[in-house]
Amino acid sequence: MERLPMNVFIVFAHPEPRSLNGAVRDFAVRHLRRAGHEVRVSDLYAMGWKSELDADDNLVRMPGQRFDPSMDSSRAYANGTQREDIAREQEKLRWADVVILQFPLWWFSMPAILKGWVDRVYACGFAYGVGEHSDTHWGDRYGEGTLAGKRAMLLVTAGGWESHYEPRGINGPIDDILFPIQHGILYFPGFDVLPPHVIYRTDRIDEAGFTRVCEALGERLDSLRETAPIPFRKQNGGDYVIPALTLRPDLAPGRSGFGIHVDQRSASPRDSQNTTR
Amino acid sequence: MERLPMNVFIVFAHPEPRSLNGAVRDFAVRHLRRAGHEVRVSDLYAMGWKSELDADDNLVRMPGQRFDPSMDSSRAYANGTQREDIAREQEKLRWADVVILQFPLWWFSMPAILKGWVDRVYACGFAYGVGEHSDTHWGDRYGEGTLAGKRAMLLVTAGGWESHYEPRGINGPIDDILFPIQHGILYFPGFDVLPPHVIYRTDRIDEAGFTRVCEALGERLDSLRETAPIPFRKQNGGDYVIPALTLRPDLAPGRSGFGIHVDQRSASPRDSQNTTR
Repeated sequence: MERLPMNVFIVFAHPEPRSLNGAVRDFAVRHLRRAGHEVRVSDLYAMGWKSELDADDNLVRMPGQRFDPSMDSSRAYANGTQREDIAREQEKLRWADVVILQFPLWWFSMPAILKGWVDRVYACGFAYGVGEHSDTHWGDRYGEGTLAGKRAMLLVTAGGWESHYEPRGINGPIDDILFPIQHGILYFPGFDVLPPHVIYRTDRIDEAGFTRVCEALGERLDSLRETAPIPFRKQNGGDYVIPALTLRPDLAPGRSGFGIHVDQRSASPRDSQNTTR
Repeated sequence: MERLPMNVFIVFAHPEPRSLNGAVRDFAVRHLRRAGHEVRVSDLYAMGWKSELDADDNLVRMPGQRFDPSMDSSRAYANGTQREDIAREQEKLRWADVVILQFPLWWFSMPAILKGWVDRVYACGFAYGVGEHSDTHWGDRYGEGTLAGKRAMLLVTAGGWESHYEPRGINGPIDDILFPIQHGILYFPGFDVLPPHVIYRTDRIDEAGFTRVCEALGERLDSLRETAPIPFRKQNGGDYVIPALTLRPDLAPGRSGFGIHVDQRSASPRDSQNTTR
């Protein structure tokens, strides 16, 4: 079967290239290129990425002016006065058909440097504050937005055991731990979000284990275009009461929590296994 | 009623002192000092806090050595060769009776600079990798650990409406959004975690609104010692199967998700309102 080449953008957040994460990243880049895809990588540590969103992110500021993260970001984005490092990452996002965020799970979230990539690259007017606000449409977000039509996937390593992240595991279900990222960071500006690829117990991976890791990841990379995304509900598609933005009482009646924002009617068996908890 | 003075440590993560967050922080410090408490503040932006955990966090390294985040952290902590900024923050944590993390909710989590405080200050041997691992005791964590006996609370501002964070709100329930922080970052190394104090719709707060914000926060600060913590389940208290670390089948039978890690038997009405979703 002939595969159409895609543009794949990997954002990589590990401090050591000779780590498991580094080896997995190298494998992914090679594998994707061999399949004919274009690949770009932002290796945040190697780039010396600035993690802290602050007043210096707008190149043109009035002296003594109070810094307002949203207002300043909005102005800088609209006026083309964003710091160059931010604009470059936005350009890579526009270029990409698929975005992969690769990171080790540190304290049940992303490393600070990757959070700082989100905080800064996700400018007001680019990733939020997009589209009209009215009684039926509360901005282009959660299923609409600048990044609509693109796909995104998390590629995560965890030191702990898989059972610790199961539905009744002590850390909480992995899909719930990742929900603020998958729904709040990826789906929010429009991405279709593929089920995450998580590698557990990374301190116990020998050579044979690494081969298995690459095989499993290779299958995911070969099916980036076909894999069904998590069927999160669109904000402006009629499922939510606007402006309260609560789920309509007749949908998932009596239930609450992250799971109700996945539309089980359109979920494939694999998705529902991954997201219903 | 006479109040015993406490040591309160506020970790503050907003880039602009003249922001609502800055004003709230100033109020909190004044209010606590007037009540006789000792207060220390780590203003991460003002301190120029380094957000990125990396090889430079260990002052003594072999040239060319592969950097392993946990191993290096463990060695630096044990040998007293941590960077001074990390050691100083650990000392403040040891000093504190109560720790307050104050931050604006950015992309459903903490700003990168605060995540970087956690990533770096939470050294191996200090906040994780503590205690014996056996068939009945899987390390001193989730209810035990270096910071046991201390209390912690999140003080969070959110631009969105409260209804967006309700049990059926589109962003997900606020207690679930904060679970990876409250359970995974605060309860994990031993803190008793008080219900969070969240201020919503922060772009719409006028002077009268700010007065109400201070009144509500003042009540929380006056009751830091008496407020019942969220009754998270202890890892090594018999509720979990070790080493799988899944909740015993007879507890919260048939249920899953973050909520099952709160022990409803010991929850007060206020707690269960805050944590059962």
